[in-house]
This record gives sequence, structure tokens and C-alpha cells, in this order.
Amino acid sequence: MSGFYTNHDQHFLAVDNIIFGFDADKGLMILLVKRKIEPQMGKWSLMGGFVRKDESLDEAAGRVVEELTGLKDVYMEQLRTYGKIARDPEARTVSVAYYTLIQVNHYNEELGKKHGAEWHPVGGYPKLIFDHNDMVENALKVLQLKTRSQPIGFELLSEKFTIPQLRILYEAINQKPLDHGNFSKKLHSMKLLVKLDEKDKSKSKKGAFYYRFDDERYKQLQEKGLLFDLK
Amino acid sequence: MSGFYTNHDQHFLAVDNIIFGFDADKGLMILLVKRKIEPQMGKWSLMGGFVRKDESLDEAAGRVVEELTGLKDVYMEQLRTYGKIARDPEARTVSVAYYTLIQVNHYNEELGKKHGAEWHPVGGYPKLIFDHNDMVENALKVLQLKTRSQPIGFELLSEKFTIPQLRILYEAINQKPLDHGNFSKKLHSMKLLVKLDEKDKSKSKKGAFYYRFDDERYKQLQEKGLLFDLK
Repeated sequence: MSGFYTNHDQHFLAVDNIIFGFDADKGLMILLVKRKIEPQMGKWSLMGGFVRKDESLDEAAGRVVEELTGLKDVYMEQLRTYGKIARDPEARTVSVAYYTLIQVNHYNEELGKKHGAEWHPVGGYPKLIFDHNDMVENALKVLQLKTRSQPIGFELLSEKFTIPQLRILYEAINQKPLDHGNFSKKLHSMKLLVKLDEKDKSKSKKGAFYYRFDDERYKQLQEKGLLFDLK
Repeated sequence: MSGFYTNHDQHFLAVDNIIFGFDADKGLMILLVKRKIEPQMGKWSLMGGFVRKDESLDEAAGRVVEELTGLKDVYMEQLRTYGKIARDPEARTVSVAYYTLIQVNHYNEELGKKHGAEWHPVGGYPKLIFDHNDMVENALKVLQLKTRSQPIGFELLSEKFTIPQLRILYEAINQKPLDHGNFSKKLHSMKLLVKLDEKDKSKSKKGAFYYRFDDERYKQLQEKGLLFDLK
């Protein structure tokens, strides 16, 4: 390594991961852990870890999610990097924040318990360590913007879902009620949902048909330059 | 510092800055420098530098811009962080990329010359070191998206500008021609431009009126939840 490099400071580098999940009864949730080390041991925290020399940032963020949830190959995006000098009172640590969307029914509860992980609603979660509250609020804003123009919300749902479940998901993400008729009209006009022959009868006697998202058709529409649009 | 921290790897951390400028004749441009150190000495590069322990990431990115342009307090946003293991062949270095919008007539040419800096059009710039080409392409995409919903394009123009200059800017950012009438209609409907009593007569005998962007009105509209919209 040249002297030019070695004369420069080196830094601790962390990844922190905002793991979102959804439940039609509990709404949009984030997975939090109680911090096991000082400083601020015992306080609620995002799941994170130090980046190793032998892994990329994406790999580090994926490793953290897998350790906590048992899940691989989930939808994950870099959010932004937090680099204020004193954000971690123990030592200068720069953190690259990621957000991840998982299906809660795929989540490994036993593994979660081992790490002391718990789901908390985005509408009311505890004060987190360092700048982790900023990270969550920023991730939520990005999720709100992105779910309107890209069908990533479906990453939070089971393969099959009802239209009311989908609407409740969008209401939970945007933290406001949506007009039922308008939402349903926009959805159907994109012709991206495939109606299944099966009904969810847990909520009413009449039941609600299950749907699945049509990945194939979405790819075709994308190639034609058409956008997913739930604005 | 606790043993838990010190047992972890530390990393070189850089900032790289995509500095955009605009000229009605040359279009949208980026400011590039010839790299002065190995590896890849003499190759074209974004302006960057190592992050110091005593500065935040934003401060480091601002320092780099000031060193090259003489400008402070310019429009600057974090783009994303690049963290592939071997992106810099000399040593593992994670780079936080920023993009910056400046007015080329405020740019300090002498300072730029000292650093070997040159403006290159975004439509045809040389191959850059490492992953810097990815950074530029990514910044351009973000700029295209963002200038449609936020009036940040004005950061690239002089205080006073003509409607044709503004249209040429948007055409340069989006790298495609825009319908003159439609563009002008959308602009005027937002009522965010103030017509000045002065004309630019450099392009025609009749001349084109100068305008300025109405910051005050934009702030009022924002508070009412109205969006800048040039989609």
C-alpha cells in the first residue's frame, strides 16, 4: 500500500438495517433488538454490525438480516450513510443504513428470540440509540415514495392476498386512510393482479377473493416503459 | 474504547463528488480532475478525498468542493455509498458519493486549473477510474428524477435567466428535447417565475425577457403541500 494511503485515518464502519414487516391486524412494523454492548446497553436498537474487510457493504447488510431473521435474498436497499462525528459516543463509527422488506410469516421467531428481537409498530416504537430514530423516519419516507411508483409493497405480503389486505398495507405505509373505491380502481386498471379461485373467509361470511401479483406482466409493462402508479 | 469495538476492522473512507455545472451552449457538464496518485495516476477522476476523523461526511464532501471550486454553501446531496471489496485496487476504501450543483460563472477557474480540473459534457465524458462512471450515471438519474419534483435545477442557473435557457437546462438534464409550448405552459401555471424588466438580446434582435425564481412563493406553496411539477 502506498504511503499516500497509509497516512490517512481509518474508521469503524457499521451497517444498520431497518427491517420492515406487515401484519393486517398490527400494521407496518419494524424489527428491533435490545443492544447487548456498551454504550447504551439494554436500549432498543436497529439490528446492525461492523463491516468486515472481506465483505462488501451489501454483503454485510445481508449478513445482519440473515443472522436475525434466517432469511436470505430478501428485498434490501441502501438508504443513506450516517457520518456525524459523535453519532456513536464510544468511537467514531460511520454507519451505512439499509432497509429490508420481509414477509413476517417467513421470519424465524426462534432465531429472533435468541437475539431478543421484537416487532414494533412504526406508528409507535420506542426511542432508539444514537441516530437510529432518524434512520427509521428516513426509511419510512423513502418507502412511502417508492411504493407509489414501484410494486415493492408486495414484498411485505404473502404470495396470495386480498384487496382489503393490500389496501390496509398501503394505508399502514402512508399512515393515512385511502379511498376504497379509488384504490381498487387504480389497482385493477393496471391489470397486474391475478384473481385466484380461493377466498379468505376469516373476515366475513361472504369472504374476499385472494389475488397474486403478476410478475411476468409487470416485466412486460416495464419494458414498454409503463409505470406502476398508485399515487 | 471497549474491547468490543477495537476487535473490529477499520476502513479507509473517501468522499467523491459529482460536481454538475451548466452552460447554455455546452449543456450539462461535470467537473473532472486528473488523478495525481497511484493507482491509475493521470486517469480522469471525480474530485474526492479521504474522510478525516475530525469531520463529518458532509463536511468532508463540502471541503472537497471548496478546494476545487472555491465555493461554499452550494447545493449538495449524498448520492449513495460504494462499498465493493476491490473497487479501489490499492486498498479497501469505501466511498460516500455526493453530487453538487454549482453556477459555472461562480466557479474559480484559477483554482480549478491548479488542480488540473476540466468541465466535460455529461453526454460524452472520458472513462473514469474505479467505479466513478457508475457514480456519475447514478447521479444523473437522481438529478433527472429530482429536478421534476423540486426546483433544484435553478441552482445551476444564474439568478436571472430566460425561458429558453431554462428549457435548454431541462433538455440537457433529461438528455432529450422538450415540447416548447408545453414546457412554457407548465412553468407559467406554477407562477414561480418573476419576469424582470430586462432582456437578453444576445440570441435575437427581439430578445427574451429575463426571469428569476420566486423563492418566497415556493416556500408558501410548499407549506400548503403543493409540489413543483415539471413531469
